[in-house]
Amino acid sequence: MEKREIKRRGILMVLSSPSGAGKTTITRALVAQDKGLAMSVSATTRPKRTGEVDGKDYYFVDQARFDAMVKHGDLLEHALVFGYSYGTPRAPVMQALANGGDIITDIDWQGTQQLSEKARDDLVSVFVLPPSMAALEQRLRARAQDSTEVVKARMAKSSDEMSHWPEYDYVIVNNDIEDSVRRVRSILDAERARRARQIGLAEFVSRLRGV
Amino acid sequence: MEKREIKRRGILMVLSSPSGAGKTTITRALVAQDKGLAMSVSATTRPKRTGEVDGKDYYFVDQARFDAMVKHGDLLEHALVFGYSYGTPRAPVMQALANGGDIITDIDWQGTQQLSEKARDDLVSVFVLPPSMAALEQRLRARAQDSTEVVKARMAKSSDEMSHWPEYDYVIVNNDIEDSVRRVRSILDAERARRARQIGLAEFVSRLRGV
Repeated sequence: MEKREIKRRGILMVLSSPSGAGKTTITRALVAQDKGLAMSVSATTRPKRTGEVDGKDYYFVDQARFDAMVKHGDLLEHALVFGYSYGTPRAPVMQALANGGDIITDIDWQGTQQLSEKARDDLVSVFVLPPSMAALEQRLRARAQDSTEVVKARMAKSSDEMSHWPEYDYVIVNNDIEDSVRRVRSILDAERARRARQIGLAEFVSRLRGV
Repeated sequence: MEKREIKRRGILMVLSSPSGAGKTTITRALVAQDKGLAMSVSATTRPKRTGEVDGKDYYFVDQARFDAMVKHGDLLEHALVFGYSYGTPRAPVMQALANGGDIITDIDWQGTQQLSEKARDDLVSVFVLPPSMAALEQRLRARAQDSTEVVKARMAKSSDEMSHWPEYDYVIVNNDIEDSVRRVRSILDAERARRARQIGLAEFVSRLRGV
């Protein structure tokens, strides 16, 4: 029995969540499990840290280069975070998608809105909710030895971020990390089976039917 | 950590394929694996066979009752097959969906078109393709000791049915039955995580944020 590959356009998956709800852990676990899925590499003006590799962890650029990229429409989305610019270069993402490769990125709702404007048909957006505010606070406290005020401010920001769930295609509650990874994996597998993404189907069925 | 259930509307999943491509095997395997998923029970004018249970295998009705159901809009879809009428009663499906239960049915493209008109938002449609015509012919031959002419006629019908794949949300090639069951299961799990089906999300997030 011959097993033919059907040509498919890749998926641009975005995972968003308030800080501490688990999007980065889920994203990394997925990429580790799935050979067809790669993490998007951002461009940034932030200085390179020890051990970071240009083109792998980030594309390290200066502000003039970054501004030129924005001006020429070379970024799918971009934002200023703590004084440094970050953005998603368009060309490598589009090349991967054209080759049937899937890309994942964990950006916030503002970045997702920009992606949605520029790549709606390729985008699959997932919002990750914490099971409770207590769980979120616990994770934020565990992460850094911040003062009560800083944690409070972050919780307020998280609550605000959480209000953007209605802008996403899928919503999951991260009760358990393994279960959440399994669920996002199902979403990825399902989206791969979407008729509209399998651009080689017409050719496959024609050959099958011999017409 | 409290684990709250989010109210969800059920999914009406339909699997279609040319005869012999595996839709019934996949459907039964899924129902056996998944407690939240039930097979749709059809109404039919066909006489009850030994061992069949009314209300479980079919709702057995006479032609007058069936015609009245059609007339009153009590069926989501119906068709005449080898002189007997078959149809999907609306009420039990709608009740299950309202309670968050998922329903699966393996009907043909004509039935799917009718379902699509009457329950578009609840419908998730999957088309199952055979890996090759040779594989399909093999399965049709294995199934019944039909004459070459009958098999030929069925193959022609299958080829015709296959042309309806563009009307479905998802398309899979049934290379391997276990792999196909796993893929349809992913589609079901993903659709369960769709924001639009989780009608209790707004309430859940409000309670989470305490607003």
